[in-house]
Amino acid sequence: MALKLYGLPMSTNTTRAMICLHEKELDFELVPVNVFSAEHKQPPFLSKNPFGLIPVLEDGELTLFESRAITAYVAEKFKETGPDLIRHKDAKEGAVVKVWTEVEAHYYEPAVSPIIYEHFVAPFQGKEPDKSVIDTNVEKLKKVLDVYEAKLSSTKYLAGEFYSLADLSHISETHYLMQTPCASMINERPHVKAWWEDISSRPAFNKVEGGMTFGKNQE
Amino acid sequence: MALKLYGLPMSTNTTRAMICLHEKELDFELVPVNVFSAEHKQPPFLSKNPFGLIPVLEDGELTLFESRAITAYVAEKFKETGPDLIRHKDAKEGAVVKVWTEVEAHYYEPAVSPIIYEHFVAPFQGKEPDKSVIDTNVEKLKKVLDVYEAKLSSTKYLAGEFYSLADLSHISETHYLMQTPCASMINERPHVKAWWEDISSRPAFNKVEGGMTFGKNQE
Repeated sequence: MALKLYGLPMSTNTTRAMICLHEKELDFELVPVNVFSAEHKQPPFLSKNPFGLIPVLEDGELTLFESRAITAYVAEKFKETGPDLIRHKDAKEGAVVKVWTEVEAHYYEPAVSPIIYEHFVAPFQGKEPDKSVIDTNVEKLKKVLDVYEAKLSSTKYLAGEFYSLADLSHISETHYLMQTPCASMINERPHVKAWWEDISSRPAFNKVEGGMTFGKNQE
Repeated sequence: MALKLYGLPMSTNTTRAMICLHEKELDFELVPVNVFSAEHKQPPFLSKNPFGLIPVLEDGELTLFESRAITAYVAEKFKETGPDLIRHKDAKEGAVVKVWTEVEAHYYEPAVSPIIYEHFVAPFQGKEPDKSVIDTNVEKLKKVLDVYEAKLSSTKYLAGEFYSLADLSHISETHYLMQTPCASMINERPHVKAWWEDISSRPAFNKVEGGMTFGKNQE
């Protein structure tokens, strides 16, 4: 088996890569990394990713890290297999996919991630969730979701009338968000709600959903 | 003139796009956005970028925002002109370019940006720089630069033996960083120092350098 993904099925960044691999119907080996014993911070793993974070993809001799670089690579290499996640036949559509993939990385995930952390990881570590952190990020997320609601009222998906990496990138963290009281922020925006129901019902996500039992963002 | 870039020559995110346009030797019109009167937060501009941030690139009917999506689009569309910033003839090299472009966005810039802010923007606003913010981010940046030093001791540039978007993406914020006491963090790491001297001496950057007279990160 050529493709090896080092990571954990509960990690949002690992599952971002896994969903992409499943969309392309690829066989891959998921190699568990014991982050609780800090395996990812020790030399064997550090030779794969010097920043000590999961996931890492190995494709033969090639070693890649950073989940969004991994998904971009997989989507490009296997562009003729499964859904065209990067719109490789239309440079303008492809560019818009990149815009909204950046939006996920720079606006959506930075607001969602602390909310998930406080709801799932803090209690797991015996800490009280920090309400002020949640409140601050709820305010940030509201503004982002208002833009999404407007965008998704004009196109079915974020980058246009087609499912793409831009949408896929959101699934992992939104899955955990929907298990918090902040689910209402998605549900009260009808176009965002319909979009979430659509992208979260894809078979590629359903294959990883069962393993997502803990919200810690490992990367 | 087909290409219009909305932004400010002092903004690191605007200059990231400008450097890429200059590498490709493209004519473009820089359309100033008056961020001091919040022009970017008002309807005419919000129709170009609903998040109200610069830069925005218009290429005919196509409107793009997010500086790294803009540089990726320009590098792809004009891949046959000037340096090949995305290694489009080698999928593996191209994938490694994406990895290190993500590293800039997720590790380097998040540490450098607050340092720049405290050194340049806070005094401009009549505030004392927050030393604790600087100290926290200096610690983060040290760890990132240690990885860079190791990487750049084995390859001339971040993604390999070739200059790419991964290197280009670092120039704007490092230019400001080098005007702070944190310049020593670059200078005391010989491979990082040589890399910086190389990438900052490229003509494409020299064309924008004169306009970078204020450190505020506008995006």
